[in-house]
Amino acid sequence: MFKQAHRLEIILPDWLGAFAQGYASTADLTKRMEFVIAAARMNVVEKSGGPFAAAIFESDSGNLVALGVNLVTGQGLSILHAEIVAIALAQRKLGGYDLGGRAMPSHDLFASTEPCAMCLGAIPWSGVRRLVTAACDEDARAIGFDEGDKPDDWVASLVGRGIETITSVGRRQAAEVLRFYADGLGVIYNAREG
Amino acid sequence: MFKQAHRLEIILPDWLGAFAQGYASTADLTKRMEFVIAAARMNVVEKSGGPFAAAIFESDSGNLVALGVNLVTGQGLSILHAEIVAIALAQRKLGGYDLGGRAMPSHDLFASTEPCAMCLGAIPWSGVRRLVTAACDEDARAIGFDEGDKPDDWVASLVGRGIETITSVGRRQAAEVLRFYADGLGVIYNAREG
Repeated sequence: MFKQAHRLEIILPDWLGAFAQGYASTADLTKRMEFVIAAARMNVVEKSGGPFAAAIFESDSGNLVALGVNLVTGQGLSILHAEIVAIALAQRKLGGYDLGGRAMPSHDLFASTEPCAMCLGAIPWSGVRRLVTAACDEDARAIGFDEGDKPDDWVASLVGRGIETITSVGRRQAAEVLRFYADGLGVIYNAREG
Repeated sequence: MFKQAHRLEIILPDWLGAFAQGYASTADLTKRMEFVIAAARMNVVEKSGGPFAAAIFESDSGNLVALGVNLVTGQGLSILHAEIVAIALAQRKLGGYDLGGRAMPSHDLFASTEPCAMCLGAIPWSGVRRLVTAACDEDARAIGFDEGDKPDDWVASLVGRGIETITSVGRRQAAEVLRFYADGLGVIYNAREG
């Protein structure tokens, strides 16, 4: 007989909470990104997933709301890109599906690599008002990751939806993490093996 | 001090498991879709989320692997579109992030409405080999839902990735569920209220 689960539980890596406590709020976007890139590197070292991290910050204060890392291989779910994890953790923490609600401060999504097609599509639904990225699509593609079919000018698409977008903040360091993963023979978990 | 959750738990509606047991495996795509559309309607009646459902079936046998419904409002997470829920439940059940793995039967994703930009991006990462949809983007837009910025010919994009795509199977019935939701003043939870 068909049996459906009653819940879906996603377990975060043990190291993540302690790591996040090392962050000190800052108005400096580059410093915020350095923290996110360090989390991506830690995810590789700890072998908890792909070489990607993302975080939700309050835009002005720089206070950290949630830190996510890629958990595709670690949790066995293809949807668990770092941005998706960060958005979900932040919404759960703040109690609702809209990080841009009327009574809320503005929120940023920082991502250590430009978003794939899925995460790009998730951003407008999340309520964030700003996206800041480090490594570029071509850096991810250079180690074999597929970014999916994005609109040609995806930055303009976000800006047109009122989401400020700043790219290539800390690109060199983030691209190094991608190469570090590839050099360690990390799994490039693109679509469909069979 | 910053505190990060150790896990993220998504609770499925109580009615979902029993409802899924009412499905009888069939090779008939229209019958499979009727079941998915009925789940979308049930999600509206039970007020557990938006008027959308999706399911993963084994392509040939029609055996049901997982049934998902939209849980954006019910669970307070913007990522929980029906397709995302169905994909995650199926992967958790089958034990890995690739529904197209070498030792597996081919899998279909049925969705009661054409996928938004996020879910479209998620489909190639899931490993499914076929997408079957009912209501069209314009039916969702007609009641105020935003489908996001999708590639102009998104069907060709999926087909180019080896994912067969069949649209408008049961469109009329699925569009009726959308109107049923709108008529009941269901929340149209697009991006950012504030």
